[in-house]
Amino acid sequence: MFVLGIDPGLSRCGYGVVEQRSGTQRARIEAVALGVIRTDPAEPIADRLATQMRELQALVDEFSPAVVAVERVFFQVNARTAMGVAQVAGLAMAVASAAGTEVVEYTPSQVKQSIAGWGGADKEQMQRMVGELLGLPGHPQPADAADAAAVALCHLSLAPWHRAASRAESRAVVPATVGAAGSSATP
Amino acid sequence: MFVLGIDPGLSRCGYGVVEQRSGTQRARIEAVALGVIRTDPAEPIADRLATQMRELQALVDEFSPAVVAVERVFFQVNARTAMGVAQVAGLAMAVASAAGTEVVEYTPSQVKQSIAGWGGADKEQMQRMVGELLGLPGHPQPADAADAAAVALCHLSLAPWHRAASRAESRAVVPATVGAAGSSATP
Repeated sequence: MFVLGIDPGLSRCGYGVVEQRSGTQRARIEAVALGVIRTDPAEPIADRLATQMRELQALVDEFSPAVVAVERVFFQVNARTAMGVAQVAGLAMAVASAAGTEVVEYTPSQVKQSIAGWGGADKEQMQRMVGELLGLPGHPQPADAADAAAVALCHLSLAPWHRAASRAESRAVVPATVGAAGSSATP
Repeated sequence: MFVLGIDPGLSRCGYGVVEQRSGTQRARIEAVALGVIRTDPAEPIADRLATQMRELQALVDEFSPAVVAVERVFFQVNARTAMGVAQVAGLAMAVASAAGTEVVEYTPSQVKQSIAGWGGADKEQMQRMVGELLGLPGHPQPADAADAAAVALCHLSLAPWHRAASRAESRAVVPATVGAAGSSATP
């Protein structure tokens, strides 16, 4: 199963395609493609967005990922940068969904938590862990591609929990309904 | 010449296609299509973005506008709404640019200034003016479509000034160069 991780940005949008062989352990996760889609800040915004859209479409077409995992955007930091980040994240989600691909979003701290074990991990720690998980010698380069791979790895790490939680929720509905008829669980 | 105005939003993206017959006056501007692309807030964000992308693409394909004019987005108001607005604006710009269409952005106050004569005009004044400029009986409906038509009308009203300003800038380069060689304008 291919997972395409996206670290969105207008000047530099990192992507990482990782593969998990069905039924194997974490050590069998492999990097299939790591890279960065760059656009020239001197060009008009609309043209740069069109370039990002075209290249994201090419990635989805080439790898037919089962899931596109996008780093979730926040606006607090820098409104000017955040605009491009939000727009490229939107392009990635639209292109993936239009291709019938499942789309998930993870916050930066979810990504850090799942890869390095805690949400406050620094860039250096994250890159080392991504390299180790993917069995790459040294730090994966470029850095934006490693960040994107981390989002994809986060999905592989959290997806089993999501599925378990969904199953638990589905099961939970039944006792709750029974409870409403016969117990004092909800007064 | 068709101008496609866009009032971006994820739940409701207004669009207005207006036509100006070459060489005619303001009164000869006509509304060709006014409408709203709606998405269901209950659906996943990625699917809603894909719907907006598909419909925006369909508008560009159908009308082949010379220009797509998008209302420029700001982040100050409501981060949650602003995210969807920014992303749909990004989709509109990417789709238009990918089709080889010129893309321009106007701030809300530029739009109000050009349509109602001042940047603080309220919604009621704007709708009345858009209706009058397009020769429509009563207020154009729905409101988001009228807002989008206003952005297109803003472009038609400001485009001649942009062109004049560009020409003036080009001319200004020549005297400045001459001046540097022979005058005391820049010590």
